[in-house]
This record gives sequence, C-alpha cells and structure tokens, in this order.
Amino acid sequence: MAQFGLIAGELLSRIRSARPVVHSVTNYVVMNSTANVLLAMGASPIMAHALEEMADITAIANSVVINIGTLSKTWIESMMLAGRLAKVAGKPLVLDPVGAGATKLRTKTAKEIIEESLPTVIRGNASEILSLSPQGGTTRGVDSLHTAEDAFDAARGIASALGTVVAVTGERDIVTDGEKSLVVSNGHALLGYVTGTGCAASVIVAAFLSQDSDLVSASAAALAFFGLAGEKAAAEAPHPGSFWVKVLDALYSITPEELEQGARITAL
Amino acid sequence: MAQFGLIAGELLSRIRSARPVVHSVTNYVVMNSTANVLLAMGASPIMAHALEEMADITAIANSVVINIGTLSKTWIESMMLAGRLAKVAGKPLVLDPVGAGATKLRTKTAKEIIEESLPTVIRGNASEILSLSPQGGTTRGVDSLHTAEDAFDAARGIASALGTVVAVTGERDIVTDGEKSLVVSNGHALLGYVTGTGCAASVIVAAFLSQDSDLVSASAAALAFFGLAGEKAAAEAPHPGSFWVKVLDALYSITPEELEQGARITAL
Amino acid sequence: MAQFGLIAGELLSRIRSARPVVHSVTNYVVMNSTANVLLAMGASPIMAHALEEMADITAIANSVVINIGTLSKTWIESMMLAGRLAKVAGKPLVLDPVGAGATKLRTKTAKEIIEESLPTVIRGNASEILSLSPQGGTTRGVDSLHTAEDAFDAARGIASALGTVVAVTGERDIVTDGEKSLVVSNGHALLGYVTGTGCAASVIVAAFLSQDSDLVSASAAALAFFGLAGEKAAAEAPHPGSFWVKVLDALYSITPEELEQGARITAL
Repeated sequence: MAQFGLIAGELLSRIRSARPVVHSVTNYVVMNSTANVLLAMGASPIMAHALEEMADITAIANSVVINIGTLSKTWIESMMLAGRLAKVAGKPLVLDPVGAGATKLRTKTAKEIIEESLPTVIRGNASEILSLSPQGGTTRGVDSLHTAEDAFDAARGIASALGTVVAVTGERDIVTDGEKSLVVSNGHALLGYVTGTGCAASVIVAAFLSQDSDLVSASAAALAFFGLAGEKAAAEAPHPGSFWVKVLDALYSITPEELEQGARITAL
Repeated sequence: MAQFGLIAGELLSRIRSARPVVHSVTNYVVMNSTANVLLAMGASPIMAHALEEMADITAIANSVVINIGTLSKTWIESMMLAGRLAKVAGKPLVLDPVGAGATKLRTKTAKEIIEESLPTVIRGNASEILSLSPQGGTTRGVDSLHTAEDAFDAARGIASALGTVVAVTGERDIVTDGEKSLVVSNGHALLGYVTGTGCAASVIVAAFLSQDSDLVSASAAALAFFGLAGEKAAAEAPHPGSFWVKVLDALYSITPEELEQGARITAL
Repeated sequence: MAQFGLIAGELLSRIRSARPVVHSVTNYVVMNSTANVLLAMGASPIMAHALEEMADITAIANSVVINIGTLSKTWIESMMLAGRLAKVAGKPLVLDPVGAGATKLRTKTAKEIIEESLPTVIRGNASEILSLSPQGGTTRGVDSLHTAEDAFDAARGIASALGTVVAVTGERDIVTDGEKSLVVSNGHALLGYVTGTGCAASVIVAAFLSQDSDLVSASAAALAFFGLAGEKAAAEAPHPGSFWVKVLDALYSITPEELEQGARITAL
C-alpha cells in the first residue's frame, strides 16, 4: 500500500541526512560486508566488543545490533552487556539470532539476550524464529527450511508475549508486533547465494529504527529497501559475485522516490 | 583423462542437489570469502568455534575444514576438538596448514591436529607441505617459494605414513594418497593476487569430499573446478578485484558438463 | 612537485620487485580487504596475533601495522608485543589509531602503543590525531568531523615530540615529521562509502616504508598511490560496491610511470 512506500522513502531520506551510527556486536563472517552495507546506504557503522568501551560506544550509537553468528564465552558477555546498555539508554536494539535452533548454545544465548535486553526487533529466518517460540523447532545449519509464513504464528506469539517486533525473512518477509502485521514482497533468490544477507537485513533494520517511527513500518521499510536493492542488482548481474557488488551499488543509488515506488509492503 | 572430468562433473552435480553443510573452523581473514565460495558453488557454509556447540555443529555438518591461518590458544583448542569430533563421527576432514613452516607455532599446531584427528585431506602449498614432512622446510610468510612438484616426494611420504590424501597446490596441483597420484593443470596466475584462494581451494575440496567418492579423484576434481573458475574469470577480468568477483560468478555458473570438458586432470 | 612523483613511482617499482611482507595485527572488519589491497599492489600480507609466534612473524616481516579497530584485552597484549618487537628489530611500524577519541579505551591504548613502541608513522583521520595530542579531542564513531588541516598543528606537535611521522588523511592528506610537511591532494569522496579505506591507507604506507627512503616522502607517496587508485576507480564506477572492486584493480594496474605523473604531492 502506498502509505508504507511513502514512509520507507521518508525514512531513507532522513537516514541519508542524519548518517546514524549503528553499533554492531556481530559475527566475524559478516563484519566487513555489513559495514559496507551501512556505509553504502548512508549510515555510519561501528564495531566494538570490548566490555571496557561498551558504555562509550553505546553513548554515540543511534542503534545497536547483536548478531550471534560466531559465539564464544567472551563474546556472549559482550553481547549481554551491549544489550543491557542499549535497553537502559533506550536505543533501538535489533537481535539477529543466527543459527538459533541449530545448536543448543545458540538457542540458549538468543533466549538469554531476549530476556535480559528485550530487543526492539528480532530479525531471523523462519527456522530461527520457530526455535525461539515456546514450541521450539530445529534448524539445518544457518539456512532455513521454512517459509516466513510457516513462522507467522510463532512470530506473533513471541511479539505479543514480549512486546517486541519480530521480522521473519524469506521469499516473502513478515513483520509483526503481535497485532499489526505487514508483508514485504521485495527480494531476489540470488540473496541466498551470498553470505550475510540476513545479517545485512538486520543492520538495515537497525538503521531505519534510528529514525523515530512506528516500529513495524520502519522494519518493513528496511526490508523492502534491501529487497529492492536485490531486485535492482539481479536485473544487472545474474551471478552471485557481481550481484553482491551491485547490491552495494543499489543501496547507495536507490533514491527515496525509487523506494517509495518500488516498495511492496502490504498489511496482512 | 576423460574419466576424471566425468567424475568431477558428476560430483558437482550431486553437490548442487545435496547442498552439503561444510563446517569451517578457520581464520578471520577468509571467513567471509570462503563462505561466499561455498554458497556460490551450491554448498552451505557454517562457521563456529565455541567448544560448547562443536558437537551439535559436527552432527549437522557433511564435512569439516580446519584452517590455522590466525591462531590463538582458544582457537587451537577449538580446532583440536573439531578434528577429534569429525574423526569420531567419520565426517571428511580437510586440514589447511596455512603458514606451516613460517612459525614454530603453526608447524607444531598443524602436526598436532594431524596426529590427533588424521585428516582425510591435507591441502597446502609446497612450502607448507614440505614443513610437515620429517625433513622439514621453511616458509616465507604465507606464500610458497616452491612448485607443487618440489613437494611431491614429501606429499607422498606424508600420505603413505598417515594413510591420508595430500593435495599440494601451485601453478600445477598434485594430489596423492602415496600410491595413486593425479596432476591438475587448471588455474590462473591472478589467483595469487587475491587473499584466501588457497583457503578457498580447501573448502571446495571439503564440499567435494562430502559426496561419497574416491578421495584422490574427488580432491582433484575440486581443484580442477576451482582452477577452471579462475580461468573463466581471468578471461573476462584481467585485474584482481574484478577477477575475484568473476571467480564467484563462475563457481555458480559452471555447469557439470562444462567442468567435465574443462577439467585437466591426469595421472602422474 | 615532480620530485615527489618520481620518488613515488620508484618506490612502487621497488615494491613490485621485492614483494615485501607486511605483518598486520589489525581489526576483524578489514583483515580481508587490507590483505587484498596488499596483494593487489604487489606486496605480501601476513596476519597473526598469537603471542607465541610474534617473534617468528616479526623476523620475516619487512614492516608492521598495528590497527586498534576492534580491541580486546588479549589483542591489546598482542599489539603491545608486536610494537615492541618491531621497535627492537628496527622494522618500520605504522600505527592506525582507529576510533581514538571515540572511547577512552581506544585513546588510552593508542597512547600506550605510541609510548612503548614509538611507531615510525601514525596514520589517522583528523579526529583521531587530535585525540592523541596533549590538547585532546573527541571522535564521532570512526568517522572524522574535521579536515586534515584542522589537525595540522596537533600532527606537527606529536611528530616533533616523538620524533615520528604523522599522516592525517582526509579530503586532502597531510604528512609531517614536525619540520618537513607534505600535502597529498589525490583521492575521491567515494572512499568514504567503503569500510576500511583508512586502514587500507595504513597498510599501503607500511608497504612503502619497507623500501628504504625518506619517511615523509614515502608516506606521502603511499597516500598519493591510494588516492590515485580511488580517482581511477571512480572514473569507471560511480557507486561504492563496484568502486571498491575497481580500486583493487587500479592498485594492481597503476604503473610506476602513471603514479609518477598522477601523484599530486606538494610541500606545505
């Protein structure tokens, strides 16, 4: 619906002016690629995990991302602290529960972060979101075996129980706060052939959350923006190496008007 | 010889259907690029190093890679555990002894992993393989001063002594189990101007090993596939930045038939 | 002035023959991209941080880079040791104080490294350099709010006090040893939309320092080379994803003669 496209374009425009600082405590695999995603779209990434500087970093961050893709004891401590500080400071916090359901450590860590820091948005694929619901679920590696629709009930349940927003990404994405739910139909299958595209979606959501707005609309706007970049890239480059290069180009070149026109967001 | 091309094409075809999960305990430098290599070719990467989740990860992995490119005490523990678990579970294990010979820590760590987990395949450049032989050898940084042929005797000796396969990569690659030896002549000099191409070769070998097959042929097939991607990329892009983008494209676009025709594998 | 272009071309030519080994103890975000920068230009990167192998690595390194972009206790120990070993061995050492001024931990760590290892060159943006001067200063994230010119007095003061070279990068770059100062006018605004370009500048400076030369001229030559690569790339690719790919291409393809002609280095 046109109103959501309008919101998306407006938020993108504000991000490009404000250049919000997005702090990520994230996995080693995607640090470089998600920093490039944020820079290309007009935001300002910072990566830091030392306990000693977490408060200083939170103070300058406009939003925070916690991504559990490569865990270890010390990093879990960093994530817990980053989450608590974001909560206390009232900074928007996105949790990306990479591989939740695939190992007990990941499921447990994701649940502990949720409990302690109550993320603003939890962004995962269907398998990951299912594994966080009381009914549970399993994941094969870091890929999802389900569509976003399969996890809609779980997402709604988690969102309602916690008062948070849950974004399930897949061929179509679903964003819900338990009451209001939006579907995003932007995207391209080639995103599945590049590492860290889910993680990229999460940092883009964090950038969009940094601009005051309705949380469900802002999250959907972010996913539409990323999906549109994928569509634009795939039109020029049908193979994954050059496709990803073009995704970064598109995150930089898509105008607010283009996003307003291209966003395919509908109420569910 | 045509038979090896046929095997290579068949294995690539099976990988694309099965989408095997390849678990890497690897160095920070190449995590992103090797994950992209695996995704582009049709496999499914997972990176994890926490001791607490290693058993869960091994259970879902179809093959395992240990790469010692950036060591520390805790990561060595993770690698030792990953190796032992792969051995017990009977999952194919590739060891990439990055920089063995360059420092005592790396040579010693590589030898300990070999002793404890008996890798299915050891994939290194000539300097690295020479440093692992009883006669020893030295390495200048992470680059090799020797051709694969210089390390043939060492490779055969190690393979025979351990009952493993050794793959020495260079301008030409040699794969041997001590008795049967194959030479792969695919490849391109530009691969030397991009970081992590040896590491990429190792994860591709791991993907090929996940499909039941003769180990020497499967390893040679993997190296022929990667080398062919390099040739295809170099034909389109003569400089290293765009070359690597095209390598990822080629890993995605090369068909089993193309590999069957293009693989240059001969018995030694 | 033509003399500086001549020096730059000569140094690039020597690097391509010598393939100097540049050892980086650096942040997770840029390990892959700076390794690719060094390889593309003709140098040989090595990344290692284990205390146990630092002496072996220093022995084979022609120059060393310490980059504090993602700190933790154990990494700070590695950086301190790398700095001390480089100093004792007389190897050129570049310090990149990423985010100094943004957090107390980073400012303090940068100052301790400076005190203990007396870097050959300190390369930072204006905010970072200002934060290291006795007058201090603050940084917003890892981006700079100042031009290089704003930090000229601070840079000269630090350089004179320590007997080191300070390189401040920005739209124009300034290099000074406290007495002799050079300005480099090469570069392109798109470098601000890619992560790790400051870090890339630092490793290129390290590569140039590995060839005996006047330190101020060599540092300016390195920055001119990188800036020229940015200009060449931007002429072909106006968006950040493909721009960076073309930067790597240019680092490989720019000839000594091209650099001699294109370097815009003047005395201040």
